[in-house]
Amino acid sequence: MNQQVVLISLESPHSFWRLSAEHERALAAAFPGVEFRTAAEDVVPHHLAEAHVYFGWRFEPSWLSNAPRLRWIASPAAGTDHLPVAEAHSVGVALTRSYGFHGRPMAEHAMGLILGFSRGLFTSHRVQRHRTWWKDDLAKEFFDLAGATMTVVGCGSIGKHLARAAHSFGMNVIGVRRTPPVAAEGGITWMHTSAVRQAVAVADVVVDLLPATSATDRFFDHDLFTAFKPGSLFLNLGRATTVDQSALLSALSDGRLRGAALDVFDPRPLPTRHPLRRHPRVVLTPKSSTLSRTYMDEAVAFFTHNLRRHLTGQPLDGLAEVPVLPS
Amino acid sequence: MNQQVVLISLESPHSFWRLSAEHERALAAAFPGVEFRTAAEDVVPHHLAEAHVYFGWRFEPSWLSNAPRLRWIASPAAGTDHLPVAEAHSVGVALTRSYGFHGRPMAEHAMGLILGFSRGLFTSHRVQRHRTWWKDDLAKEFFDLAGATMTVVGCGSIGKHLARAAHSFGMNVIGVRRTPPVAAEGGITWMHTSAVRQAVAVADVVVDLLPATSATDRFFDHDLFTAFKPGSLFLNLGRATTVDQSALLSALSDGRLRGAALDVFDPRPLPTRHPLRRHPRVVLTPKSSTLSRTYMDEAVAFFTHNLRRHLTGQPLDGLAEVPVLPS
Repeated sequence: MNQQVVLISLESPHSFWRLSAEHERALAAAFPGVEFRTAAEDVVPHHLAEAHVYFGWRFEPSWLSNAPRLRWIASPAAGTDHLPVAEAHSVGVALTRSYGFHGRPMAEHAMGLILGFSRGLFTSHRVQRHRTWWKDDLAKEFFDLAGATMTVVGCGSIGKHLARAAHSFGMNVIGVRRTPPVAAEGGITWMHTSAVRQAVAVADVVVDLLPATSATDRFFDHDLFTAFKPGSLFLNLGRATTVDQSALLSALSDGRLRGAALDVFDPRPLPTRHPLRRHPRVVLTPKSSTLSRTYMDEAVAFFTHNLRRHLTGQPLDGLAEVPVLPS
Repeated sequence: MNQQVVLISLESPHSFWRLSAEHERALAAAFPGVEFRTAAEDVVPHHLAEAHVYFGWRFEPSWLSNAPRLRWIASPAAGTDHLPVAEAHSVGVALTRSYGFHGRPMAEHAMGLILGFSRGLFTSHRVQRHRTWWKDDLAKEFFDLAGATMTVVGCGSIGKHLARAAHSFGMNVIGVRRTPPVAAEGGITWMHTSAVRQAVAVADVVVDLLPATSATDRFFDHDLFTAFKPGSLFLNLGRATTVDQSALLSALSDGRLRGAALDVFDPRPLPTRHPLRRHPRVVLTPKSSTLSRTYMDEAVAFFTHNLRRHLTGQPLDGLAEVPVLPS
């Protein structure tokens, strides 16, 4: 293999989302035979000509034509729907996502949202300025996590992290996925996607972690919400396209849902007059579920692991699934 | 022992805080030789004459004079500061609190409050109606629980429950108490109350679980708050008397504290114009940390266990500590 050139573009206003000088030094020390170059995002196309590997937040489809030697696009993100997966595949360029470290902050985020509802904390904070006393309200609305059931739809590595947190509070966890493990795993009751109606019907909390694919588009539609257990809580920490927002609003209005917590929604940001912003039983967070001060440390560690595989001819981890294009 | 008469007065507008017919049947079945009687709270004094044991939420000091046979007052509550501990002691009546089951809901409550701050959820919910986008705000204010330190002041059985929940998120836990265990216990770093300044100085989150005694009156005062780590979070799920609220407000205003979550405060309720109600970084809950749908089930189980001890002449569990009266 010729000397490999790795082009890195990892910029952010926030330190934990950008490459530090320390990260650069660590990469250079780990791979003395590799040449690492960094580029600001707006000049990446000018620096791709000699790059064999690209590690960055963004990659435009048009950039591929400037990258004759490129073999691999590595993203520090968990999802790849903002990246040119099909285009890269068609010209023989691998594209990888990162995994293994989004689950921890997302589990903190999800448990915080769930406990915010289950303990009446959002209600309390909303009324603490003007209500004299509101304990009776909370006595009606709270629920115990211990003994409650959480169903995670799209239960991959992030879902397994979340399941561990839920288990520590005594919750039962059902994991729904297209390819459930054949053996018991993680103390989770596994169900196939085809049984999702049964899985949500017994859940006090349903967490949507589905990726954005053509198969998951508006997966949570009116019909599926009608299968939810009355008084259940819905969280979406996955992708906005997986939820029919009108159906969600109906399920909130008709009382089927106790509440909803959404880290993703469409459009982003929502118009300030959008009903999801104003609904008293909806909590919105600004796609902040993966915020972590150690994000880039862990993304660089994952990339280091994968770069070693790349240089030694082993298959890359986290290869993006190529979308099935309509024929 | 003569046939024992147990008088029960456990009323509440909420089903999980009152004795059900099922509980009565279970007690009668477990203790065929005991006579159980129930009374509404306002007529308890008229029914105490023949009672050997009283199990109830409330007990007024004056009721003791109507209770010549009474040997034991059992409370389903965790604290005893609302009960006539000294008066009962002086006439040879035992008084017990309950324990072992408040920790679970309180751990849910505390972790919800902590995650509400650490993930910026209270901020998000407050601004979701009018701010276009607020991710950068959260990127500044959030913190990871993994690797953070929680110091629990007054770390008894409730604190140990909370420590388990905190550990499941990767937090380090310091337990402060007057009588720290001599050996390692519960994965907690134990410190003596005399070292509380050092214990709060390294904590990202300080949880006050102190009981109300003369020794804990305004334990968290101006001087102790100045020892806190800058940017830390303070929770009080114990007793309002343990905190100097003016000192707390100063610590919030001068930026020492990131925020405060209070389940108890003085007076209760706070006047609607009280600054603790209106402070943007204070979350109040209405003494709701022990809300649990299984509360009375567990309180009856604890009482059943203790009644068996009483009937067989074993020492009672949960005996209230008799306050040291000023000489």
